[in-house]
Amino acid sequence: MILVNGKVASDIEVTDRGLQYGDGLFETIAIHDERAILYSSHLKRLEEGCRRLLIPPIAREILDEEVVKVCQGISRGVLKIMVTRGSGGRGYQPPSQPQPTRILSVYPWPNYPSIFMEYGITLRVCRTSLGYNPSLAGIKHLSRLEQVLARSEWKNPMIPEGLMLDSQGHVIEGTMSNLFIVQDAHLQTPDLSGCGVAGVMREFILKQAFNLGLKTVVRPLMLADLKRAEELFICNSLIGIWPVRRLGESQYPLGPVTRHLQHLMQS
Amino acid sequence: MILVNGKVASDIEVTDRGLQYGDGLFETIAIHDERAILYSSHLKRLEEGCRRLLIPPIAREILDEEVVKVCQGISRGVLKIMVTRGSGGRGYQPPSQPQPTRILSVYPWPNYPSIFMEYGITLRVCRTSLGYNPSLAGIKHLSRLEQVLARSEWKNPMIPEGLMLDSQGHVIEGTMSNLFIVQDAHLQTPDLSGCGVAGVMREFILKQAFNLGLKTVVRPLMLADLKRAEELFICNSLIGIWPVRRLGESQYPLGPVTRHLQHLMQS
Repeated sequence: MILVNGKVASDIEVTDRGLQYGDGLFETIAIHDERAILYSSHLKRLEEGCRRLLIPPIAREILDEEVVKVCQGISRGVLKIMVTRGSGGRGYQPPSQPQPTRILSVYPWPNYPSIFMEYGITLRVCRTSLGYNPSLAGIKHLSRLEQVLARSEWKNPMIPEGLMLDSQGHVIEGTMSNLFIVQDAHLQTPDLSGCGVAGVMREFILKQAFNLGLKTVVRPLMLADLKRAEELFICNSLIGIWPVRRLGESQYPLGPVTRHLQHLMQS
Repeated sequence: MILVNGKVASDIEVTDRGLQYGDGLFETIAIHDERAILYSSHLKRLEEGCRRLLIPPIAREILDEEVVKVCQGISRGVLKIMVTRGSGGRGYQPPSQPQPTRILSVYPWPNYPSIFMEYGITLRVCRTSLGYNPSLAGIKHLSRLEQVLARSEWKNPMIPEGLMLDSQGHVIEGTMSNLFIVQDAHLQTPDLSGCGVAGVMREFILKQAFNLGLKTVVRPLMLADLKRAEELFICNSLIGIWPVRRLGESQYPLGPVTRHLQHLMQS
């Protein structure tokens, strides 16, 4: 089911700035037993994105009601919420009174091989880099061509994810996931102030780690840091945590910190 | 009139990757007496964009026919051609056999004050920077949130354009235009290998200058180079050439090279 501004629909206007300029935001949320998982955190990021892009936020009650409606009867699925600046304006210049478009849609659950979660994955490094842009860093906006290009670089289904670096060689994230390393009992994840999406699952893991008394560090990371790491994993709202077992010439064990965090998430 | 894949329509599918990820390209073309101006150059850039993004190009005959159709009866207007990767794929991963969506639409001619062309404009410098990304540089893709944010920075209609720099401080382009400077009888324009859109009008001006025997230089430019310049102008397919008379504390004359190029374009 797709709801466009509350009405069942499958189309949007060609003039919508989401299409014209990638002028909007989205959230991808796991549905389990008709419930949107980590819903409040997703809404918090969406609101932050609206604030940053100067798009009037959607009233919480409206979203709540529509989310319940589209999740009805879904035991396992994916909810995508998109908010665009709507139509209007003069070229790139936004209209002075934007009328945002909200689109809620539900997709089938992606049946990733369970071995990715249980055993772990091989990660590759993408050639496509991420542009440094603090104005857009952190939020999950619709201008995602960098990720599309990076994800076009390989087809081997046994390699489910690729790492993206910025033009200075800092490791930022996967095409659809965030990255963590474990080193000297510290959980470390790349600084995203210049580019990248601050994932809801990344935030959740940082909180869990804090509750566990595990020291967390958010800092610029290079490939050399990944080589030295004891454990490596990626995460997002749909996959949860996937251990990384191989990256280039480096191999990693499925270590105790990764395992522990995976267990926490399943409970 | 809007044609979506050849049919009169005003909507496209929500699942289209143009909306979902900014996964596509566009051209903005002046229409004069039912003719699309610099049409071949626009199509060449569109084809180059398709090649770079691995989107199957639209057959030339199909586009030609649809362009004639939408331009019919239009004495002055704007033709926008969009090509997206269509629907499908798995997340960011493009489908193996993309079915591109083509959208042709006609908009009213923007009635810019004629003083901008005749006397010139005041240009400002935007805070929003352009991310360095050679994979996307040059082409006119749909992930344009940087331009939207830059164009949101000011509302004063007497300032019709803002300059965008990359994160290293190189001057790249205007939000909707390219930039030229004249210095020691050389026509210079920023190198766009790291970011920016290689405008069709920029290309046309470079050719005209070559034919005039004017030496042209494409190189990295800084704000200091602009300060020292004898003449400054911006250009795009709709505005033609607008002289820049003021940028920050610097003032510029409406110089002979700018004037000469303007005359050539009107002939």
